[in-house]
Amino acid sequence: MMKLADCELCQLNIAPAWSNELFSVIMVDDVAYPGFVRVIWHEHVREISDLPDPHRLALNDAVHRVELAVRTVMQPLKINVASLGNVVPHVHWHIIPRYQDDAHFPSPVWATAVRETADTVLSARRALLPQLKAEIIRRMNE
Amino acid sequence: MMKLADCELCQLNIAPAWSNELFSVIMVDDVAYPGFVRVIWHEHVREISDLPDPHRLALNDAVHRVELAVRTVMQPLKINVASLGNVVPHVHWHIIPRYQDDAHFPSPVWATAVRETADTVLSARRALLPQLKAEIIRRMNE
Repeated sequence: MMKLADCELCQLNIAPAWSNELFSVIMVDDVAYPGFVRVIWHEHVREISDLPDPHRLALNDAVHRVELAVRTVMQPLKINVASLGNVVPHVHWHIIPRYQDDAHFPSPVWATAVRETADTVLSARRALLPQLKAEIIRRMNE
Repeated sequence: MMKLADCELCQLNIAPAWSNELFSVIMVDDVAYPGFVRVIWHEHVREISDLPDPHRLALNDAVHRVELAVRTVMQPLKINVASLGNVVPHVHWHIIPRYQDDAHFPSPVWATAVRETADTVLSARRALLPQLKAEIIRRMNE
């Protein structure tokens, strides 16, 4: 498996919520976005379209299962999914629960923040994370 | 088919590069991003995970074919793909060719612009658009 010494996703050192031989599902520690999840390919592959079809479809399927888990537990107003990789060109997906009161809504999370979400709201969302993790595991093993 | 009178994607009035009964492939007229393509679901569906599996897989497949067409013709440094829909909650995908000299690189296109791409560079990319359209049609019909 190709790994690059200077790629932060090749060298990732975070315990995943779930993983298999191809990819890991990571709960992102983002204070403004509890419930933000990434699916990170293990091998250093630049573009999704560089993956062989069975791998690409397995990754799509994982993103779908994670999206369902995030919807079920976090009950967001909208789900955002994106694969960018301009800074770290190593295949990974962002799955982000969005709410009317989040830091950037309705803009993408990469725009300039327009507000701070109340601590009580963020705490209530953070309290759901153990349940989100369990739901990810359940859906990935289904 | 469910269509909303006040949804701009339900009421879309742009000639697509390619379409079938489910979705349209649209070449976006963005002066800073020649080669930006969207795949827009016809029916008003909020989340990708609201689509029945065969529709979701057909949409994934279309995004993949468009990504390949954009890579082949536009030769970007990186491909960005995203489904957000916070402003217009109607399933659509953005497929965006990214370059070191584009207006936002390496940030996402939704961040604050950091430069203007030279007109000569943008013109050269715009000159590829007829070829991109032909490649999209070819790959969608494959």
